[in-house]
Amino acid sequence: MLTEFELIKHCFNWPQDNEYIICGVGDDASIIQVPSGYELVQSIDTQVADVHFPASAPAQLIAQRALRCAISDLAAMGAKPQAFHLALSLPKNTSQTWLESFSSGLRACANEYDIPLIGGDTTSSPTLVITLQVQGLVPVGKALTRDKAQVGDDIWLSGEIGRSAAALKNILATPEAFRENDNGLAAAYYYPQAQIDLGQKLIGLANSAMDISDGLLQDASHIAKASHCCLNIESQSIPLNILSIEQFGQTQALQFALRGGDDYQLLFTAPLAVRKKINNLSCYRIGSVRELVQKIDSNSDIDIDIVSHSQEKWILLDDQIIQNTSMGYQHF
Amino acid sequence: MLTEFELIKHCFNWPQDNEYIICGVGDDASIIQVPSGYELVQSIDTQVADVHFPASAPAQLIAQRALRCAISDLAAMGAKPQAFHLALSLPKNTSQTWLESFSSGLRACANEYDIPLIGGDTTSSPTLVITLQVQGLVPVGKALTRDKAQVGDDIWLSGEIGRSAAALKNILATPEAFRENDNGLAAAYYYPQAQIDLGQKLIGLANSAMDISDGLLQDASHIAKASHCCLNIESQSIPLNILSIEQFGQTQALQFALRGGDDYQLLFTAPLAVRKKINNLSCYRIGSVRELVQKIDSNSDIDIDIVSHSQEKWILLDDQIIQNTSMGYQHF
Repeated sequence: MLTEFELIKHCFNWPQDNEYIICGVGDDASIIQVPSGYELVQSIDTQVADVHFPASAPAQLIAQRALRCAISDLAAMGAKPQAFHLALSLPKNTSQTWLESFSSGLRACANEYDIPLIGGDTTSSPTLVITLQVQGLVPVGKALTRDKAQVGDDIWLSGEIGRSAAALKNILATPEAFRENDNGLAAAYYYPQAQIDLGQKLIGLANSAMDISDGLLQDASHIAKASHCCLNIESQSIPLNILSIEQFGQTQALQFALRGGDDYQLLFTAPLAVRKKINNLSCYRIGSVRELVQKIDSNSDIDIDIVSHSQEKWILLDDQIIQNTSMGYQHF
Repeated sequence: MLTEFELIKHCFNWPQDNEYIICGVGDDASIIQVPSGYELVQSIDTQVADVHFPASAPAQLIAQRALRCAISDLAAMGAKPQAFHLALSLPKNTSQTWLESFSSGLRACANEYDIPLIGGDTTSSPTLVITLQVQGLVPVGKALTRDKAQVGDDIWLSGEIGRSAAALKNILATPEAFRENDNGLAAAYYYPQAQIDLGQKLIGLANSAMDISDGLLQDASHIAKASHCCLNIESQSIPLNILSIEQFGQTQALQFALRGGDDYQLLFTAPLAVRKKINNLSCYRIGSVRELVQKIDSNSDIDIDIVSHSQEKWILLDDQIIQNTSMGYQHF
């Protein structure tokens, strides 16, 4: 096998052309500039073999999917991708062929999103672990966060959800079966579309936003908790995938949408005043933001967060309370 | 075990007070500002259990050592620490006690270097893997890189090297034996001192710099290759640790210094004109930068890099050629 240094040079030292990248791969650290009037948005995202993806899936798919998932966090903040770092932990028996395939998948995706690789670390590990740090630019003070949803906001989705979850069983059973250009259920899993363009268009329109990685209900509860409000979601308004419905039926397709992860669509809230503008962005209105119902004994000084948490009133589905325990993907 | 969200909130959501951190832990991404006149220096660094540290070592030591090692890259660039992200992959049986210990070690080190944690990702993994992305600020155009060593430069070391390598055998044999405040060989391994203050002082003095993580000779060759010059190191000038000499003898102590990793001292080159200033910084002058000797057949059009590489003339030790294969820690 190549030495670490040869490996990096061979697989991950791509030409770059970006005036804000002062120093990329190859020194102790990268150096970047943040242009005047912008803030830097950063996210770090780990995918572990046979936890987040099947280890035997084609390497180029593993790589580009990992990058898409990571970049989705930039979309959720309304940021334009600037650069990324890769920390890759590889089993000792990793072949050069695998690595070249991984590299080519990563590079294709990096080109698609115009996000250069500017640094990294390759290490030996019993388990294949991919950590990507992605960063992007957003005008000062304009980033979309989770904590500014307002009572009365519409709740929006950027697209269909539940398709990745519907595909998962087959993907895990036969990871090597997926073919590029396959347009079936699995395409949504392997090629999630980070909503970069939409994210930037939502700046100035949306009050709050996030991407859906762990399931609609669970992720919606993060906006609710951060904004101290309640999100009421109308199940009939959720856009379901036709393939998922055909294969599993309407009821199960809805369950995939509510509780399945790996969608990477944007969930956001926006005031009624911009409803028309957002409709023009081909998004789906799926509910509304309400006041948090807090049944607190007026004589009690119990912490309001604890009470609200125990009452599970952050999310309503068709005006009904949802139990947290069944809300989505649990990482442990 | 706590859910991922409870875990993050409990262990890694520390109070912060930094005007340039706009949004820290808890959203899809962090948001920072880079003050006018500065560039952002970033490095990503992975440590894998039983590859980079003994898995049974105390968790607070594992955590703070990982952060020290990562921060050392900022020192090598002359940067002042600004913030870091943590990607932590944990085996399912990780106890809350272990995690709290890890968190407290990480926090103590973060406080020591005044570098707030602003984001992260916790995942489940068969192997404990710690990836740290660290970032710091450096005045525009002033970062210390590896590629500007000049022929005639002095070569400098910031301090003793080889002590961690001397300690390694005992550390691997009885990882749990180390006690805080233990001042023996192992202290250098568990508490490497990132040369943050020195790095910043070297701006405007040093022509090139890096930190020594994989062994003096191997790391020196990176400066040589990046700067297209030859580094001649005088073995008698290398500062060896007295404990290492007492325990292993002068010859072995030198070998630890030349080829052992984990030192995290700075290696840098600087013009003669600033020799006095650097002496005042308590550094050790260990050699000088020479022209690369290129014995190329004038009729040949073979790539100069390949020829030079094969001749292994990047590094001289006491005017003798060193073979690359014996130079230091190989990651694979």
